[in-house]
Amino acid sequence: MKVAIIMGSDSDWSIMEPAARTLQEFGIETEVTVASAHRTPEKVHAFASGAADRGVGVIIAGAGAAAALPGVVASFTTLPVIGVPINSTPLGGMDALLSIVQMPPGMPVATMAINGAKNAALLAIQILALTDPALQAKLAEYRRQMAREVDNKEQRLLNKLNQAEKA
Amino acid sequence: MKVAIIMGSDSDWSIMEPAARTLQEFGIETEVTVASAHRTPEKVHAFASGAADRGVGVIIAGAGAAAALPGVVASFTTLPVIGVPINSTPLGGMDALLSIVQMPPGMPVATMAINGAKNAALLAIQILALTDPALQAKLAEYRRQMAREVDNKEQRLLNKLNQAEKA
Amino acid sequence: MKVAIIMGSDSDWSIMEPAARTLQEFGIETEVTVASAHRTPEKVHAFASGAADRGVGVIIAGAGAAAALPGVVASFTTLPVIGVPINSTPLGGMDALLSIVQMPPGMPVATMAINGAKNAALLAIQILALTDPALQAKLAEYRRQMAREVDNKEQRLLNKLNQAEKA
Amino acid sequence: MKVAIIMGSDSDWSIMEPAARTLQEFGIETEVTVASAHRTPEKVHAFASGAADRGVGVIIAGAGAAAALPGVVASFTTLPVIGVPINSTPLGGMDALLSIVQMPPGMPVATMAINGAKNAALLAIQILALTDPALQAKLAEYRRQMAREVDNKEQRLLNKLNQAEKA
Amino acid sequence: MKVAIIMGSDSDWSIMEPAARTLQEFGIETEVTVASAHRTPEKVHAFASGAADRGVGVIIAGAGAAAALPGVVASFTTLPVIGVPINSTPLGGMDALLSIVQMPPGMPVATMAINGAKNAALLAIQILALTDPALQAKLAEYRRQMAREVDNKEQRLLNKLNQAEKA
Amino acid sequence: MKVAIIMGSDSDWSIMEPAARTLQEFGIETEVTVASAHRTPEKVHAFASGAADRGVGVIIAGAGAAAALPGVVASFTTLPVIGVPINSTPLGGMDALLSIVQMPPGMPVATMAINGAKNAALLAIQILALTDPALQAKLAEYRRQMAREVDNKEQRLLNKLNQAEKA
Amino acid sequence: MKVAIIMGSDSDWSIMEPAARTLQEFGIETEVTVASAHRTPEKVHAFASGAADRGVGVIIAGAGAAAALPGVVASFTTLPVIGVPINSTPLGGMDALLSIVQMPPGMPVATMAINGAKNAALLAIQILALTDPALQAKLAEYRRQMAREVDNKEQRLLNKLNQAEKA
Amino acid sequence: MKVAIIMGSDSDWSIMEPAARTLQEFGIETEVTVASAHRTPEKVHAFASGAADRGVGVIIAGAGAAAALPGVVASFTTLPVIGVPINSTPLGGMDALLSIVQMPPGMPVATMAINGAKNAALLAIQILALTDPALQAKLAEYRRQMAREVDNKEQRLLNKLNQAEKA
Repeated sequence: MKVAIIMGSDSDWSIMEPAARTLQEFGIETEVTVASAHRTPEKVHAFASGAADRGVGVIIAGAGAAAALPGVVASFTTLPVIGVPINSTPLGGMDALLSIVQMPPGMPVATMAINGAKNAALLAIQILALTDPALQAKLAEYRRQMAREVDNKEQRLLNKLNQAEKA
Repeated sequence: MKVAIIMGSDSDWSIMEPAARTLQEFGIETEVTVASAHRTPEKVHAFASGAADRGVGVIIAGAGAAAALPGVVASFTTLPVIGVPINSTPLGGMDALLSIVQMPPGMPVATMAINGAKNAALLAIQILALTDPALQAKLAEYRRQMAREVDNKEQRLLNKLNQAEKA
Repeated sequence: MKVAIIMGSDSDWSIMEPAARTLQEFGIETEVTVASAHRTPEKVHAFASGAADRGVGVIIAGAGAAAALPGVVASFTTLPVIGVPINSTPLGGMDALLSIVQMPPGMPVATMAINGAKNAALLAIQILALTDPALQAKLAEYRRQMAREVDNKEQRLLNKLNQAEKA
Repeated sequence: MKVAIIMGSDSDWSIMEPAARTLQEFGIETEVTVASAHRTPEKVHAFASGAADRGVGVIIAGAGAAAALPGVVASFTTLPVIGVPINSTPLGGMDALLSIVQMPPGMPVATMAINGAKNAALLAIQILALTDPALQAKLAEYRRQMAREVDNKEQRLLNKLNQAEKA
Repeated sequence: MKVAIIMGSDSDWSIMEPAARTLQEFGIETEVTVASAHRTPEKVHAFASGAADRGVGVIIAGAGAAAALPGVVASFTTLPVIGVPINSTPLGGMDALLSIVQMPPGMPVATMAINGAKNAALLAIQILALTDPALQAKLAEYRRQMAREVDNKEQRLLNKLNQAEKA
Repeated sequence: MKVAIIMGSDSDWSIMEPAARTLQEFGIETEVTVASAHRTPEKVHAFASGAADRGVGVIIAGAGAAAALPGVVASFTTLPVIGVPINSTPLGGMDALLSIVQMPPGMPVATMAINGAKNAALLAIQILALTDPALQAKLAEYRRQMAREVDNKEQRLLNKLNQAEKA
Repeated sequence: MKVAIIMGSDSDWSIMEPAARTLQEFGIETEVTVASAHRTPEKVHAFASGAADRGVGVIIAGAGAAAALPGVVASFTTLPVIGVPINSTPLGGMDALLSIVQMPPGMPVATMAINGAKNAALLAIQILALTDPALQAKLAEYRRQMAREVDNKEQRLLNKLNQAEKA
Repeated sequence: MKVAIIMGSDSDWSIMEPAARTLQEFGIETEVTVASAHRTPEKVHAFASGAADRGVGVIIAGAGAAAALPGVVASFTTLPVIGVPINSTPLGGMDALLSIVQMPPGMPVATMAINGAKNAALLAIQILALTDPALQAKLAEYRRQMAREVDNKEQRLLNKLNQAEKA
């Protein structure tokens, strides 16, 4: 199954790119679409209602401001939809967060942190890994790698402190 | 021209009713619809894209939480759309307000106060009155009546204070 | 009918200019005024109460901080008033938004997003287009053009991704 | 000099009454007005611009929601204006607070706590006491009385705790 | 695969019960656990790290205040974790929402609306349905049923309005 | 060493009482004072600067609104001061929280959750237990008891669910 | 009577300087003090309790973060105290605003906008002008000058627009 | 007794360094650890549960976003835990603040201001000084030094103002 990434403008790419990159690291086929819930509603409709037939398993939708895109996508598919609130106004992303997370009963959107596109990819991978042992193994290794990086950061900091002490 | 009122659930009626009542006071024909941006997106699409042909001039859309309805309606029509954020979650309506007011460039929604359905009707009437001198006259009288009520409230309060003083 | 744009200071022009430019694109005659609800209340009174007689159909009022201007303008006219909250303090425009949108019953202000001057113009045009078929046609073309731009953005992004892949 | 209390509706009286009562305790002549910045702007204009001539020294203005009243009053007088944000919407008074306190440079409103009408009266008294030694003496006694009440509260609590311990 | 529901106290059950009920409607086997990230961290560790081996496919974690539970569960498993912020303090659930949704890169929690337990169940079902056509069919029917209910609500409201009109 | 509890009014006792009760459970001698940073500043000064000499080891200060008490107490002693923000205004305790937690560099106040008086007592006990092995042992037992209560809550909930299932 | 300006650090001067400059423009004698409610509480006590005897009529206190200074000053004097919340933390001044404005009953602080030092001076001047006709006349002229500046700003903007049109 | 400083990433060091530096000024032995509640939960468990045995008396934990680290550390030790919310997202640190301060009953975290690492060190020192008269004396001297610095700042500012006056 593929993962689809959809966003309202190519200017959102700087925020959404980590999702694409993480999916690529895990060897997940990815589909990228630019469509707007408000400016091209019919394109969003077509994108979402046809997603399952195109082999998409999970949809990642990024949006800022009155961020209707993730919820509107969700309304046209029963695939899991992951929403990424984008910080694109003077309100620090709080508008996008509330517009995405406060979905009414019946229509869930799995909401990530503000600008949290990387986690959107990881959640998609965790979902696909439920029935894909190889992917599951990669995820486990990814977690171990993250833990090793924390240790490396510690080592780096302690080295710096030791050198400062000697100096 | 008619005014259409749309909301996501009949439970929103207690908030939206003042809009209907105010339109009725001004003799404006009104159309009431229950449809949900997330649960019945195609009904919303049909409602909005056909509104002008049904003789609707202004649309009032009330919604709470991740309140996508007003923006989604706006995306399917060039009629003016007035949004009423409904206080229906523990966040005091702030989620609905931001979901409605923070619309991206290109697709305005005329946003009212939280639970401000009466003002939605008055704005619709002000719009229709632009080319309807009789309606304009009613609006002017309505304003004078509001001013008289403020004076009545003052009189009521001053009477109460005078009586308290004498007692 | 003309559209009037009013703001409290010439320093607000950088935010309000997109409204003027959009009105110009649509060939709407526009009137620009600088007046302050707090510093020149009588000028605001004269501006608003005389607007209809000057041929104004819709008023766009931009203001930041304790943004009283749109509401005060509304109190002196029954023309539709569109409010643009301007982000001009450390609170990210939340002060201006609440000062404009939370109008009491009886006196609506059609509130736009923070810094959303372009949408103010589009709403004004949607209102004027109700009785102007030529303007209505321009709006419809504008919407189609917006949709085409979304497709162009997608194409641009996909090209970039393809080139990155090949490189 | 008198103190004037102005509010937008007689329903605000339950919040504003402590101001009137406190002024009365101090023997300050008080004038009560109901007028609305949005519904009766001309009455507000007349109220404020004539206040000094009526012998008013300080104005207390209470308002909720998009609370324009204190700022509008301030724009028509150079008397000190004290603003009381009233909690009258689902936003807990935050809308009224920001609408009153975030006044632009040039036009101060002395803002009190949400629903803080009693303090508005005390500030007015502190201002009048600057040139009124008898009032100054009453204020000093009022402060001492407040301090004694804190001690009484402590005694009451300690008695309760002692009795609970014995029981 | 089962769905596990975990919460910090049995007092959270009134909020989390709709999740259990919805899962039951769809015939999903459900496991209910009470454990606290702060009071019984080792129980949470055991719960989460053993979940996959117990046949759990998706975990739903509800928590209020400094809602660490969903993130801590996520740190011990690569199963998808769905977080439900519970409104249990004077801050209206904003504390729980931010504590759950703002997860750092590497460790996603699929966040639902405040008190949005029903949607947590639906998202879990959408995830399980990816490889379960029968469940997929039930979801599609559930969506159609939701749409019919919106129509029923409209009918109910219109009937009420008609009767009011006749009366 | 004793623990001192100070609050601005006896009406705060309903919030602060859990602190006193928890200290009593652990057998810690407790001193209760009512004093106000704003109404009885000299009493607060005397209370705080004399605390160490009275055998106080930790001070717990509860306050609402513009909650200056904990910080003012801290400025007159180098004993650890624990602040409890009390929810006493329409802002849900956010005003008290920020007034207490945002202390400037040089003068820490250990801030608890809104209305979190019980945790204030537990932190005081954790501090005193650093040099009191018996108290340390009681704390460890308290933690184990909390964990057992979580298990009891689970059992209670599972019993209820089982009975519901059988019925 | 003099006006005293007090702030917690010389780094606040960039925000407070407009107050001093405005007082100077009006020829008001000004006294500048650096003292901290938390770091030098006794200096603040001495400053505030002696202010009236030093000929001070109004006190302006600026503070950021957990901004206790204005309230603490108020507790030691019955002179009017004007508080200026300073934006000095990542919270945009909201912490300082709430710490200053939410004063409990009995102890008012006249709160200005975030960073609103100029208005603090103007309010002080309005207070002193109550019994100083010359100052009152200067204030009236200041208001007229402000109004003329708004007109100048309008002229400047219209000239710019005209030139742009011709170009 | 030592003080332990723990943070989730070496990138937090720029915020946490003032804690280390202040502890060093007071001659307190300090232990620095990088570990993540979400990425290396077992390392955090080992760190916290072994802290007392390593001679640690107080733990300072800094974290941003969904800042679970301080609470998770607290759950594995009865040593006092001091939490420092780090501003690391577009929400200005409000997410970290609420994630740390709103701990549930039973498990306190002594919360500091956003980015308030220096105060975390001072609180740790105040705790250790309870049974260390030499440290207590250093703290008293530190306070006096802070007060002198406030006076120096005042002198610096007054000199600047005097020079400006002469110029």
